[in-house]
Amino acid sequence: MSTPGKALERLRQHLHTTRLLGSIHSTLYYDQNTVLPAEGATWRGEQLALLACQLHERQSSEAYAELVAEAEASLDADASPERRRNLLLLRRELERQRCLDPDLVGRLAQAQARGYALWQEARRSADFPLFAPALSELLHLRREEAGQLAVAEQGMGDLPRSRWETLAQRFEPGISEHLLEDLFTPLQQRLPALIRRVQEERGRSGAVSAIPAWDLAEEVQDDLCRQLLEEWGFDPGRCRRDRSPHPFSCTLGPQDFRITTRMVPGQPFSAFLATAHEWGHLLYEQGLPRGDDHWFPWPLGEATSMAVHESQSLFLECRLARSQAFAARWYPRFQGALGADPWGGAHGFWRDLNPMRPGLIRVEADELGYALHIVLRYEFERALLESELQVNDLPAAWNRRMEELLGVRPGNDAEGCLQDVHWSEGLFGYFPSYALGHLVSAQLAEAMERDLGPIEERLGRGEDQTVFGWLAERVWPLGRSVEAGELVERVSGAPLTAGPFLTYLEGKLERLAG
Amino acid sequence: MSTPGKALERLRQHLHTTRLLGSIHSTLYYDQNTVLPAEGATWRGEQLALLACQLHERQSSEAYAELVAEAEASLDADASPERRRNLLLLRRELERQRCLDPDLVGRLAQAQARGYALWQEARRSADFPLFAPALSELLHLRREEAGQLAVAEQGMGDLPRSRWETLAQRFEPGISEHLLEDLFTPLQQRLPALIRRVQEERGRSGAVSAIPAWDLAEEVQDDLCRQLLEEWGFDPGRCRRDRSPHPFSCTLGPQDFRITTRMVPGQPFSAFLATAHEWGHLLYEQGLPRGDDHWFPWPLGEATSMAVHESQSLFLECRLARSQAFAARWYPRFQGALGADPWGGAHGFWRDLNPMRPGLIRVEADELGYALHIVLRYEFERALLESELQVNDLPAAWNRRMEELLGVRPGNDAEGCLQDVHWSEGLFGYFPSYALGHLVSAQLAEAMERDLGPIEERLGRGEDQTVFGWLAERVWPLGRSVEAGELVERVSGAPLTAGPFLTYLEGKLERLAG
Repeated sequence: MSTPGKALERLRQHLHTTRLLGSIHSTLYYDQNTVLPAEGATWRGEQLALLACQLHERQSSEAYAELVAEAEASLDADASPERRRNLLLLRRELERQRCLDPDLVGRLAQAQARGYALWQEARRSADFPLFAPALSELLHLRREEAGQLAVAEQGMGDLPRSRWETLAQRFEPGISEHLLEDLFTPLQQRLPALIRRVQEERGRSGAVSAIPAWDLAEEVQDDLCRQLLEEWGFDPGRCRRDRSPHPFSCTLGPQDFRITTRMVPGQPFSAFLATAHEWGHLLYEQGLPRGDDHWFPWPLGEATSMAVHESQSLFLECRLARSQAFAARWYPRFQGALGADPWGGAHGFWRDLNPMRPGLIRVEADELGYALHIVLRYEFERALLESELQVNDLPAAWNRRMEELLGVRPGNDAEGCLQDVHWSEGLFGYFPSYALGHLVSAQLAEAMERDLGPIEERLGRGEDQTVFGWLAERVWPLGRSVEAGELVERVSGAPLTAGPFLTYLEGKLERLAG
Repeated sequence: MSTPGKALERLRQHLHTTRLLGSIHSTLYYDQNTVLPAEGATWRGEQLALLACQLHERQSSEAYAELVAEAEASLDADASPERRRNLLLLRRELERQRCLDPDLVGRLAQAQARGYALWQEARRSADFPLFAPALSELLHLRREEAGQLAVAEQGMGDLPRSRWETLAQRFEPGISEHLLEDLFTPLQQRLPALIRRVQEERGRSGAVSAIPAWDLAEEVQDDLCRQLLEEWGFDPGRCRRDRSPHPFSCTLGPQDFRITTRMVPGQPFSAFLATAHEWGHLLYEQGLPRGDDHWFPWPLGEATSMAVHESQSLFLECRLARSQAFAARWYPRFQGALGADPWGGAHGFWRDLNPMRPGLIRVEADELGYALHIVLRYEFERALLESELQVNDLPAAWNRRMEELLGVRPGNDAEGCLQDVHWSEGLFGYFPSYALGHLVSAQLAEAMERDLGPIEERLGRGEDQTVFGWLAERVWPLGRSVEAGELVERVSGAPLTAGPFLTYLEGKLERLAG
């Protein structure tokens, strides 16, 4: 028998090395997306696959299972709730890993690589039938995976879950279709009507409110992003910003946080808002409990869910950068940068930051339409997994549903059901986290305003740090000590609902129209 | 009994994975030296140490030894000389790895880390006694290492070597003190006199020939470096350039070549010449036999020695970028970039590119003084390893010898025996490769001129690609099929001597003075 301290220390060392390997993987990924020459891609793929193998081996090996069991056996009556929860989370992940047939894991990896390659080609040529067989194969394998994972879940005493729910657990622990119905139904009921109202008002006001097209040079946009990050606490001692084809952020080590910028011609707010968004992710990462040996490299030092992660990035993007007070502060800078004023004042500038115009493309959607893009994907994911919708029928169904929900109809599948990368890699269960991020962000904002007064007023006084301070105290240090639902309830005092988000959105639309 | 094909294929796969791990290490190193935030350094150190352990394990494990033995056993009478040589090189490296006491390897790694940290502090404060104990410890451990390596060498039937020779084999296979005496003695005999002559001439011509100080903005220097690389075949599809505190180049994969630039205030040629130099390294790397499965990942696909590597970088730096014809081509561009002409013509510009002024610092030395910096270090390395010189006596001996060889005397140890990083990491045996690079470069240039006519004329006609083509055909594809000495002999028709370098230098000095 080993002492509790020794068993835990052995396990901690194992987890530490796993983190090292994981962060090496992230470093290769960052290099790949910022500086890797095109022809280096094949070799980089081999490097990443090698590390993925090593990581999977470490996380499912018999030796690791013994370390976890030994640590569990060493728990005595005095063990802290944090220690118990760390071991519980490790045990759940281990069981999920170990119930998977290694053969399935290999076939999935191959199908993902093939799916991604075919999807790229299919999207380029707007040719869904080219991608359809790969999507069918991925759905087939994920159904198989869900079946194997369900065995592990039953073994751990979980209530039975649908396939979709089982697959979504890795992104959103505790998520259920029941909860999503409660949250998404009000969105489906209210948002389409709001969209129609905004469209009608826009029709009435006509050209009067139209803002002439404008654009900013890349280096000017880059400098505005730099200024934004500087004001929001970007510390070059532990942060780094580069350019990449798609904006993203990632953590490469406990003191190494990366963020990237992309400039989109004709979309001069794109880089600025994406910078705000990605910095929200990175502030959360920087605020996670990492410094203390009790947390890092244990699970409690991680983000609790994708929705909570997204709530933090959306908080900075929508609650701060797209707010009226913030727009008033940045209006003179954009005016100076552009050397012109196409907005006719700060209110026009704010409206430009919030077009509230439904479109076909999810990643270009604003607060008004975004959640409906997700509702649609969530519906189809479930229908596809349960074989209620045939893969070949997806394009027509997609286009019909887009029209119902958002009032727009794709001209081809590249701007329809082929637009997102997720399904090409077999990621089913991920999309709802994006919409949940909006809801969580809104509910946290209400709680924050109870403590700090209106956020707009704080921003108007330049007290952004007070806002960050609240998040840093109330949200970020929770790590995985609670799941997303508990986090919201603990911080806001009530279970998550769609109410705060809809109330916020209606108020904002009124002010934008006024 | 396994078939020869299978044994070789198993070994090839093992080597392939070793390459993947090695290149992951290089990627982390590149990121570290270009973008890593300062506070990320500790974690990066842990990542690198983890990979170093994995690499050492792969290269010395019993499993690997069995793979090599199996492949050797599978060699039949028909086996190609290339295959035999690949296995021979692997066997030699394996024997060297395996004769080392793992405990010594660990102690060395620690002493290197400690030595590097102390050296940094000692250099900052020009305080040699602070570093002296670490240097003594490193010498002690390297002596021990040389003793263990000697056992492996004897086992392989090598003739006995001195400690210095044994340690230098990993950088310069086949190197001997006898050979270096033959090569360095003429340098010691001729270079100091040449230096005195240049100094005297400079004294006589006085202020007339002095070029007023000038400098270029960073972005202007950066653009000149970009132009240079573009002209010399920089392919963004497989190459990438970034900024770093020290210029370097490295290969991250078979189709992924990186080079960095540093701008030094007050030294407007520094970045330009360093770019030429590093590109020489990278052209060699790109020209190594990598495309063919028979070579990569086998040893024959590697550079054969540090001296040959350095000869290629020096060829581009000194034979091309510092040449008169090249200066004439670039003079108008520098004039345009500066918006002034401090040189009073192309000849003055060429002279400015070739100051031929001995100084205290090796990395700032030009063709005239460089080799003497190396002669001095080589003498002291041997004396220290054989305990003929005590560590505490090094600073005084260094300063005395600098004055004899180069006519300059350090004002403190930071610009004296503390200037180089190598010894702080226990790298003994490396320095001579730098000077050999000059000699090899000169001898290859003579051979090239026999084939192509005067290089200056080729450059004058903008036929740089013809020069590269010759190297690409005659030098780069040899990989490790031959050692450095054989390479020189095969390409130039004669064993390496100091003659071509001295002849070249004397000619150049005359033309510079004229």
